[in-house]
Amino acid sequence: MVRIVDILELTVPLDAAVANAVVNFNGHTVSLVALVTDAVRDGRPVVGLAFNSIGRYGQSGILRERMIPRVLAALPDDLADPTTGWPEPARVLAVALRNEKPGGHGDRAGAAAALELAAWDLRAKLAGEPAHATISHAFGLPLASRPVEVYTGGGYYHAPGSGHTLTRELQGLRDMGFRSFKMKIGGAPLAEDLRRVEEALAVAGDGSRLMVDANGRFDRNTALAYANALAPYALRWLEEPCDPLDFALQAELALRYGGALATGENLFSAPDVRNLFKFGGMRPGLDIFQMDPGLSYGLTEYARMLSDLEGQGFSRAQAVPHGGHLVNLHIVAGLGLGACEAYPGVFQPFGGFSPACRIEDATIFPSDAPGFGLEEKPQLAPWIAQLLS
Amino acid sequence: MVRIVDILELTVPLDAAVANAVVNFNGHTVSLVALVTDAVRDGRPVVGLAFNSIGRYGQSGILRERMIPRVLAALPDDLADPTTGWPEPARVLAVALRNEKPGGHGDRAGAAAALELAAWDLRAKLAGEPAHATISHAFGLPLASRPVEVYTGGGYYHAPGSGHTLTRELQGLRDMGFRSFKMKIGGAPLAEDLRRVEEALAVAGDGSRLMVDANGRFDRNTALAYANALAPYALRWLEEPCDPLDFALQAELALRYGGALATGENLFSAPDVRNLFKFGGMRPGLDIFQMDPGLSYGLTEYARMLSDLEGQGFSRAQAVPHGGHLVNLHIVAGLGLGACEAYPGVFQPFGGFSPACRIEDATIFPSDAPGFGLEEKPQLAPWIAQLLS
Repeated sequence: MVRIVDILELTVPLDAAVANAVVNFNGHTVSLVALVTDAVRDGRPVVGLAFNSIGRYGQSGILRERMIPRVLAALPDDLADPTTGWPEPARVLAVALRNEKPGGHGDRAGAAAALELAAWDLRAKLAGEPAHATISHAFGLPLASRPVEVYTGGGYYHAPGSGHTLTRELQGLRDMGFRSFKMKIGGAPLAEDLRRVEEALAVAGDGSRLMVDANGRFDRNTALAYANALAPYALRWLEEPCDPLDFALQAELALRYGGALATGENLFSAPDVRNLFKFGGMRPGLDIFQMDPGLSYGLTEYARMLSDLEGQGFSRAQAVPHGGHLVNLHIVAGLGLGACEAYPGVFQPFGGFSPACRIEDATIFPSDAPGFGLEEKPQLAPWIAQLLS
Repeated sequence: MVRIVDILELTVPLDAAVANAVVNFNGHTVSLVALVTDAVRDGRPVVGLAFNSIGRYGQSGILRERMIPRVLAALPDDLADPTTGWPEPARVLAVALRNEKPGGHGDRAGAAAALELAAWDLRAKLAGEPAHATISHAFGLPLASRPVEVYTGGGYYHAPGSGHTLTRELQGLRDMGFRSFKMKIGGAPLAEDLRRVEEALAVAGDGSRLMVDANGRFDRNTALAYANALAPYALRWLEEPCDPLDFALQAELALRYGGALATGENLFSAPDVRNLFKFGGMRPGLDIFQMDPGLSYGLTEYARMLSDLEGQGFSRAQAVPHGGHLVNLHIVAGLGLGACEAYPGVFQPFGGFSPACRIEDATIFPSDAPGFGLEEKPQLAPWIAQLLS
């Protein structure tokens, strides 16, 4: 039996002096957590490490006041897989959520996710294998054999005279080996955004390599105006044109816009996602689901969402999680999802991958390091050292 | 100009050794907050006081790490009503939510609500009037002239041999002047719950004075079985028969169950509530909406929900907020809503009202104390003293 003997958490500031249509990411934080066990490998305790994705906030309060005490107070049998005796992610999640009511899937979903994902890192390290292999085994899937497609987020608004331009930003990403690029819209009037789309297309080559992201900003008239104006460009997808919970408008857009729509990064539970596919007009074989395990109770809940989607005729190739980092790379590879996001250079120390994961021809494959391989990421190393010190 | 010069918050444990079908309330907490201003009345600074309702958790982390710093860093003009120069609840809310993304309406909605409601208490105290009057004025409504109907929550499961029974519990509430009673279901098999319903009916008199609450526990088959079995009793309402986000099942139940259904206490935003009335089959003139301002960004957002509901043909008499306490009493009176909940004796120090609010013939009217009158509640007084010390 492997026991969790301590749980550590550290709030890490996100290095992201960038803005999208809605949010300035300065001040955003992430919770880095460690499940410390009594198992020993190479003379050191085995520690499960993870974090609650990027783009929202660290959850120190909910972790310290509610969830960590519950997990530390649990009996080992409540947490352990009966066959291996190791802490099991779904059980860690269930214990972390004891006495939590249904509904209200917000910040606590990120707090719980950090713990649940750390249990996956732990399980992979106990098995001595990369997390994507543990994930494939756990869900009865073949081991990942092909690298994962990776596309870039970014495409920011750059202030005139700042020395940065959209063209230069995307050229830099293309030079790094990327072939498919996402850019922000909605932070400027439509005509200016269309000019920016054309500027980006000149680098991307054609619409199948360009996505646009409105970050949930538009009201109905603006969303319809953008959808109409963008249709001729045949973009790879149009992301979050409206409020993430406005399923009626999402369905109306799906009727009017022939191209792919993407949404879901701001839905944090399986019940919310069921409402998206029941009422949001999402189209099998076309639209993109962007739920992020690190914001939505972790991989256990994410797998429920996938199972619900496949039960409704959607394909897991339509699942492209928000959040470009090592945890989601292993999840995309292990579950055979559509693609992985990357934000080269920003959202440090969490954003991006490690040097051991080589990007080639716009694809990437996780390294063989045990777990999610967070220890291999140089920007994360000092924070992990601080967490464990 | 009245300036907010400090914001205090204190996590207060809820005294509630009771359980519903899903949750044991031991360990639940509430955030008590104070907006301290530079205005002086009777030689003391005017302080706006409120809390984030009961039934979920205190939000110390989100308040301290995100929202309080934003409000304290705001310019006075960002917070002030330009006509009065006083901090304005909707502006306090907007500043508290700066840089928060759309979607994910969970714990942060409670944190923001505590601040927003404290701004209402402050505004009422600056005007020298009870909060219900300030609320009526603010929304262009006539001043409350009639007392508010009050019904009891409770109807718990009592362990055999504990000396407590459902009959004795409801008789005690009846002796206190209450006439309409809510009881828990779903914590026992259907046959046993029906026996309990009949036990409760013997005290309540008839079904129009009894409500049952499943706390979002049932799957489809169980929900339909309970709905069928309960229909003959013609109860006042059947509350949260299914997951609060399962709008499809809610709509199916509305088609099959002729009586009133109640839900909404676990929906924390106007977009969530719009989905409930668009997709959940709620019936004008019949079903009950139980959203709780203290869990859902405060009164500003609650008023948006009400306006959306009335725009769809629902009546504000159908709005009966979750949470029986002074804040919601003033909101029910000020906005002319359907009824107010009470949990006599439990959920202290927040649950229930103050001795100055007399319960008579199952109705209640707020006292004339300025603001929400929290200072008049003896159980709260020591916590308020600790918060301000």
